Amino acid sequence: MATFSEADRLLPTLERSFYVDPAIFALEQERIFARRWNLVGRAAELTAPGDYLTAEIAGESVIVMRSAEGRLTAMLNICRHRGARLLLDERGSCGRSIRCPYHAWSYGHDGELLGAPNLREWIGDSREQLGLQRVAVEERYGYVWLNLDADGPSFADDVEAQLAARLGDAGRIDAWELARLRPGHSINYEINANWKLIVENFMECYHCSTIHPELTAVIPEFRGGVASQAAGSGYGSEIGEQIEGFTFDGRAGLEPLRLVPKEDRRRYFGITIVPGAFINLLGDHAVVHRVIPRSANHTTLECEWLFAPETLESGADIAPTVELFDRVNRQDFDACERCQHGAESNVYTHENVLVPLEHHLLAFYDEIRAAVG
Amino acid sequence: MATFSEADRLLPTLERSFYVDPAIFALEQERIFARRWNLVGRAAELTAPGDYLTAEIAGESVIVMRSAEGRLTAMLNICRHRGARLLLDERGSCGRSIRCPYHAWSYGHDGELLGAPNLREWIGDSREQLGLQRVAVEERYGYVWLNLDADGPSFADDVEAQLAARLGDAGRIDAWELARLRPGHSINYEINANWKLIVENFMECYHCSTIHPELTAVIPEFRGGVASQAAGSGYGSEIGEQIEGFTFDGRAGLEPLRLVPKEDRRRYFGITIVPGAFINLLGDHAVVHRVIPRSANHTTLECEWLFAPETLESGADIAPTVELFDRVNRQDFDACERCQHGAESNVYTHENVLVPLEHHLLAFYDEIRAAVG
Amino acid sequence: MATFSEADRLLPTLERSFYVDPAIFALEQERIFARRWNLVGRAAELTAPGDYLTAEIAGESVIVMRSAEGRLTAMLNICRHRGARLLLDERGSCGRSIRCPYHAWSYGHDGELLGAPNLREWIGDSREQLGLQRVAVEERYGYVWLNLDADGPSFADDVEAQLAARLGDAGRIDAWELARLRPGHSINYEINANWKLIVENFMECYHCSTIHPELTAVIPEFRGGVASQAAGSGYGSEIGEQIEGFTFDGRAGLEPLRLVPKEDRRRYFGITIVPGAFINLLGDHAVVHRVIPRSANHTTLECEWLFAPETLESGADIAPTVELFDRVNRQDFDACERCQHGAESNVYTHENVLVPLEHHLLAFYDEIRAAVG
Repeated sequence: MATFSEADRLLPTLERSFYVDPAIFALEQERIFARRWNLVGRAAELTAPGDYLTAEIAGESVIVMRSAEGRLTAMLNICRHRGARLLLDERGSCGRSIRCPYHAWSYGHDGELLGAPNLREWIGDSREQLGLQRVAVEERYGYVWLNLDADGPSFADDVEAQLAARLGDAGRIDAWELARLRPGHSINYEINANWKLIVENFMECYHCSTIHPELTAVIPEFRGGVASQAAGSGYGSEIGEQIEGFTFDGRAGLEPLRLVPKEDRRRYFGITIVPGAFINLLGDHAVVHRVIPRSANHTTLECEWLFAPETLESGADIAPTVELFDRVNRQDFDACERCQHGAESNVYTHENVLVPLEHHLLAFYDEIRAAVG
Repeated sequence: MATFSEADRLLPTLERSFYVDPAIFALEQERIFARRWNLVGRAAELTAPGDYLTAEIAGESVIVMRSAEGRLTAMLNICRHRGARLLLDERGSCGRSIRCPYHAWSYGHDGELLGAPNLREWIGDSREQLGLQRVAVEERYGYVWLNLDADGPSFADDVEAQLAARLGDAGRIDAWELARLRPGHSINYEINANWKLIVENFMECYHCSTIHPELTAVIPEFRGGVASQAAGSGYGSEIGEQIEGFTFDGRAGLEPLRLVPKEDRRRYFGITIVPGAFINLLGDHAVVHRVIPRSANHTTLECEWLFAPETLESGADIAPTVELFDRVNRQDFDACERCQHGAESNVYTHENVLVPLEHHLLAFYDEIRAAVG
Repeated sequence: MATFSEADRLLPTLERSFYVDPAIFALEQERIFARRWNLVGRAAELTAPGDYLTAEIAGESVIVMRSAEGRLTAMLNICRHRGARLLLDERGSCGRSIRCPYHAWSYGHDGELLGAPNLREWIGDSREQLGLQRVAVEERYGYVWLNLDADGPSFADDVEAQLAARLGDAGRIDAWELARLRPGHSINYEINANWKLIVENFMECYHCSTIHPELTAVIPEFRGGVASQAAGSGYGSEIGEQIEGFTFDGRAGLEPLRLVPKEDRRRYFGITIVPGAFINLLGDHAVVHRVIPRSANHTTLECEWLFAPETLESGADIAPTVELFDRVNRQDFDACERCQHGAESNVYTHENVLVPLEHHLLAFYDEIRAAVG
């Protein structure tokens, strides 16, 4: 790149091995996804004691449980006796205890051992020692957030810091009352691309004018290629003047969310929470993405559209709203799959490059490089 | 575990890597399945010269042939010329010779080269040198047993010794006349679990009261968790007093086998022949399992129900008998798959443990560790 | 083998690892398929400027383009910006430029960068430097031939030398006017065998009398096992006297090709162009095979039957002609799959051997060994 007169404008991306090497993928799982905070699913729907969900992070199955005291607890989904997976369903209720279906060892809502057949006389002393392995959990913004590493960063230093950097003030997100909202639609996308391509794609908007005709019609400033999250802390991209709502064809959307300030009702805030959550805030709804890496070249993306309960109950038509981000998703993931092909080349001798509108991706690359080492 | 006051009662299982590491799996195939005696299929049905079956052990395809002299011979299913697989069918008859379907080299029942096109003038001297590679074979209890390693243990030191340890006297099995019995039903199960989890599960009964309601109704002593093979050499578990037969609902079974001693007609003998055969003896039938490891996390289990020929010919209803062990199998393999999930965890820091009722599994672990090194 | 009195007649093949080891497969892709000339598809159908095909060699996707000047150009199918695959279709027309569907960088027919959004002011100086990565291409005999290695052998030293060795004179192929012919039928075969087994099979005819009843009926001299390409430079195998044409049942074929000399009209020339093309010349048609290695144990074979355009337009029945080589193909690939099984054995201690009728395969083995090192 040094031979260009514009050398300072085209900067190299991560090396190709980061997108294809199974060994690097394994390190990322171990040092990024297993050490940082992962949004794994809705907490707001776990209401009664014993309600649980099972979540997968970095290949590990975790039980998240509403305890009798109303707290969330989280534990590896592995019996302490012979290692059987305890719960197979994605959601459910275990009642007062989790009973292993293999030899009937049973555990309480905090994971403590309650009983084991034929071992009654001595189990008392070992309740705690033989409990399920605990996992750090936070219930925030209506979601469950997990960290597999007890020595990992605090939620404040990780998630809240990223929110604050993006919104200017982490508390600003409270106006959306995400815990009060309810999922109106969800779609899982299977993508033949490395997870980082999906994060990079979400962070930049240089591609918007090429692949997102509906989105750039609704937010005309995206035609210039400046992503909302690159435009400065706290910046929200404006919906176009002639546009009625954040819908696939610009028609009117839904009733505004009750606490969103008037000046933010026609703005879009895209927020990346590294490593695997994207939160999208609009005046009348929110969209939450979860990135689940499966292998170096395959990723699942779960996408959930959230609406005010009164909107859902009113029978208002959410379809035109859902369709906009669904189209955007499909356009994006098609592009990511194309980039995966390029990354898999063995004879391509050039480095990929970032144009100035993409230079803010370098901070993400630095995080990856620092973690993988 | 040393921190428990009951430290002597919870003993560690094999380390998790034994259930998930492809390198350990390859070593097991090479040093256990390719060096010990494997039950591979019914011999009793190979009656005429040229009748054959093809069997797979440790990924190798072997031809087992009834020779003109009535002996069984066994050979690798690989042509000595260009290495083509000679026979594709599971069973059949090759007539007087095996003819390679690629270049028509032909071999006799003992694997000797009989002819090769365009090479007539010199083939005579090389018949033996260019014969198929021989494999050690024994015909016992109606089954073919193979050992890929010519320097492996003798059949007596391996299979007979295990039978003797279990039954008190290896000859005791003769009363079941397994060679005279005939398969009345067979089922292949595909299981997403390491083969050793299936062996361990078969060896212990601590899980019986949790997952086997039909079996524990028929054999009430299993509710206590003591496996028949842990209860002492020669021990057979008793069918319950109110129970008529070894059927899924306890109804009457079939006519007793003619030579089984009266005192054994209402007993169940479960026998593990490491590495891959389970033999189950009942008063009126037998059930034979064959464990075929496919990969560290996948195993095929072939299960065959054997009955007296006069019973099959009488039109007696074998279905209630078959259904009992089929239910037991499905209950067991579901549990094994749950344990495979636990074994695949990277962040679970505890060891799995054996309770006293499972301590006899330690001998199996020792065999595995000694072989893999 | 030294112990045979006929030691000089049975010579060892390649070692088994060459057929099963993924590391050797990767080296072959890098050092053979990525360094030599590969026939990848019909060029004759790319007529207008902007007509393209995409081809895969050694896992790399290459764009082959008809330029405004009528030349063929070839370039990696990878955008210089973020590495997106540019074209997904197997064939098509891009018009005046290739436009990346991700961020709209656009490239001309020679791969030069034509434009990039938001970078207008400086792109001028960098058109060449930011062009697509070029690939060496030749248009010969109606086909596109590619070489990923700019420092690889010349087309003359590689393909033409092989043609000359086979036909006596490379120019002799011109009588078939392959560029004028048109595909009348094509079939893709998926084969669970290493690519070299397919090449070896094509090179020898010792198997012909065993597996090719239709072919040996049409060309009776093949019963002796001498392949046309082993019978001496320039040799063509004769169609039998009572046989009317090169069809599955010997019935009459099609009108002779206009320039094929009378003495060659009833001959078959099989030509192997290492590493991955087979050309079969008959008096009234040609058959072209392309070998595409996918993994150590899987290969795709594309087969195309070529006829004179006037024959296709006349409505003549090509089916009996197509059926002969389709049957031969299926017979061959079944045999190759059988050999793959033998190669995968871990306990087979013998080497595979070549009989004298197969000794000409040694030159192929030498090429492989020299390349893989």
